[in-house]
Amino acid sequence: MTQLSPYDTMTPVAQTTYRARAAATELAPLTRAVKDDVLLAIADAIEVRSAEIIEANARDIARAEEAGTPEATVDRLRLTPERVRAIASDVRGVVALPDPVGEVVRGSTLPNGLDLRQIRVPLGVVGIIYEARPNVTVDAAALCLKSGNAVLLRGSSSAVESNTALVRVVRDAIGGAGLPADAVQLVPGEGHEPVRELMRARGQVDVLIPRGGAGLIRTVVENSTVPVIETGTGNCHVYVDAQADVDMAVEILVNSKASRPSVCNAAETLLVHQDIAPAFLPKALAALAEAGVTVHGDERVLAHADGSGATVVPATPEDWETEYLSYDIAACVVDDLDRAVAHIRLWSSGHTEAIVTTSQAAARRFTQLVDSTTVAVNASTRFTDGSQFGFGAEIGISTQKLHARGPMGLPELTSTKYIVTGDGHVR
Amino acid sequence: MTQLSPYDTMTPVAQTTYRARAAATELAPLTRAVKDDVLLAIADAIEVRSAEIIEANARDIARAEEAGTPEATVDRLRLTPERVRAIASDVRGVVALPDPVGEVVRGSTLPNGLDLRQIRVPLGVVGIIYEARPNVTVDAAALCLKSGNAVLLRGSSSAVESNTALVRVVRDAIGGAGLPADAVQLVPGEGHEPVRELMRARGQVDVLIPRGGAGLIRTVVENSTVPVIETGTGNCHVYVDAQADVDMAVEILVNSKASRPSVCNAAETLLVHQDIAPAFLPKALAALAEAGVTVHGDERVLAHADGSGATVVPATPEDWETEYLSYDIAACVVDDLDRAVAHIRLWSSGHTEAIVTTSQAAARRFTQLVDSTTVAVNASTRFTDGSQFGFGAEIGISTQKLHARGPMGLPELTSTKYIVTGDGHVR
Repeated sequence: MTQLSPYDTMTPVAQTTYRARAAATELAPLTRAVKDDVLLAIADAIEVRSAEIIEANARDIARAEEAGTPEATVDRLRLTPERVRAIASDVRGVVALPDPVGEVVRGSTLPNGLDLRQIRVPLGVVGIIYEARPNVTVDAAALCLKSGNAVLLRGSSSAVESNTALVRVVRDAIGGAGLPADAVQLVPGEGHEPVRELMRARGQVDVLIPRGGAGLIRTVVENSTVPVIETGTGNCHVYVDAQADVDMAVEILVNSKASRPSVCNAAETLLVHQDIAPAFLPKALAALAEAGVTVHGDERVLAHADGSGATVVPATPEDWETEYLSYDIAACVVDDLDRAVAHIRLWSSGHTEAIVTTSQAAARRFTQLVDSTTVAVNASTRFTDGSQFGFGAEIGISTQKLHARGPMGLPELTSTKYIVTGDGHVR
Repeated sequence: MTQLSPYDTMTPVAQTTYRARAAATELAPLTRAVKDDVLLAIADAIEVRSAEIIEANARDIARAEEAGTPEATVDRLRLTPERVRAIASDVRGVVALPDPVGEVVRGSTLPNGLDLRQIRVPLGVVGIIYEARPNVTVDAAALCLKSGNAVLLRGSSSAVESNTALVRVVRDAIGGAGLPADAVQLVPGEGHEPVRELMRARGQVDVLIPRGGAGLIRTVVENSTVPVIETGTGNCHVYVDAQADVDMAVEILVNSKASRPSVCNAAETLLVHQDIAPAFLPKALAALAEAGVTVHGDERVLAHADGSGATVVPATPEDWETEYLSYDIAACVVDDLDRAVAHIRLWSSGHTEAIVTTSQAAARRFTQLVDSTTVAVNASTRFTDGSQFGFGAEIGISTQKLHARGPMGLPELTSTKYIVTGDGHVR
């Protein structure tokens, strides 16, 4: 163990982390009732101080507009009285969720009479690095508080005024309830250096969760000695099997692709069994065209393009690995289910893959062989979501295999410890 | 996703990893019956080819003796007919364990009628870097096979002949059963470079588990982009509370320290409440002396040393953080339970801490506030062990909070995936 340097000689980031650890120690044994009261106080404070939050946000907006930021991005940044109320309401949603801390995960009496219990405990200090909207600031704080964790937040510089105001309101509410305000802190300092320091704070920060684009996530994964949970890259596939209800397949395809193309659970590639291609592709291409989707098809898909009214362009190898996040989809015809699985194994980011089939054997084989966070049978890829899965809010969708996989709710923000109780037992 | 280079142009380590991934794909859907049959075939083959294994081991032993390796180390390396039989018997022990793959971890029917199931799946490719005895080679292979994972093994160069022979026998048995022998492979090449390459194989290797000294573990943690599970550093504490059965406390202390000092769950520090120190310390110091233990005590411990017959030397700050792994123990008197907890928070490696107390309130507070993999109440620290906990063999004891904490059995070698089943569900 490395000896800590005295507080006064620490960098601002190290001081922040040190205070977070101290706060985490106080949070860990809190009861659900205490934590829920704080969350309600936070929700109330956000509503009461809405004007202050919107004023701060206006400064971010003005700066973004001056810089010529695209209107869609500016809109994601913008807070309105309605959106502030929605943020408060989301915090109340977290109040309603069960507290994972203290849950007995397994337990038994050992042959020698020792009582063994494995119980959930908070992780400790959670670092979240995000590029998204200011509501993530409060969402993350609420989920971490409820699970007994202190949180270090690092939003994008474009939202710094909004995030500062939101965190001030949250901290005031926590302090007002007699709990340590340092449970929720922004990582101080400008530029990349503070994030770099956070990524090297192994032993002080228990986990880093990057939420944002592929570039951000890669940077954190490659430079962090703190354990990282990768989130959110989704190159999702819809596979239409030889035996499938064509209308159902079209509906699932269009919903998976076009109901909200900018999110990670939207479909990016269509795979079609060759036997159903003649019946399915003309209808599918027409429906995609109607939804405004451009298809990047292989030769066998292009062969069905005529008369469908669809925009079909030839696919290049890059298309198979692209997460478009737009009204585009790659498409190819495959010889059989195993070829579809092989394609997915090679190109998928391991987020969500759907099969549309009436065959029980095909459904079983596909779910067994596909190795992604979620496999959907006769359902849209869009269901991979914490709230859809009934977990309440989510802190992200993990696409890695360690610790958490798929939508991460409150239990995924915990670790466990074993408690062994005897009456003088020795080995 | 990075495009893989053609197999022929890969480095030997990359080729090994590539073959492991292919094997992992074949292992994942295997039934328990098939996996158990292979394990039994491996156990039989190890017994039948015992002479070949011992012959290879003799070459390692000769080399170690020539190099003037200490006899204790040579003995750990040595395989005898009896030890080879024990290795085979451990494999049969893994056969008896339940298969974690396919276990439904949670499941529900969502409000919209979708069926949601979260099931255990293999991690994929597990890398194990170890310094220990050759039996780890077979243990790790058996546990990984049973949990459907391919394994890449990197033992110490001093055991290379033994490990090569053992892996040859294991691979022959796997191949003989018609399964991919590449499920079990040694990482090829000499020196540090192959290990370095393994540590950068993110996306190809799913997890690295270093087993060995603190130096090895630190190197892997700091240089790996592959997710790592830290194992095994144990600076364990025994705290004797104000209210405690003195004889029980002495017995637990001596067992925790001296029953096997070289292992990670042995106690390294004794903390004594000031109120019980006069009654407890003279007996404890005498018992430790009898067990051959040198005590590194603070001033208040030293005050009780006279007449105990114990070897007590003054403790330095380094003693609080030292994992002796020898017949030494640090000891200090604390003002109260909270000071004991504060000492543990500052110095412990977070492995196992024990409290000896007759007070229910003290036991409750200690278990709540101490944040280690295992908290023992009126029991020896030595119980933190996969086999003692009833998990069968263990792949290591994780001292980190993510994914696995404490003794790791078969479930800890798995991830999960969600299966969502509908009949045309869209959002």
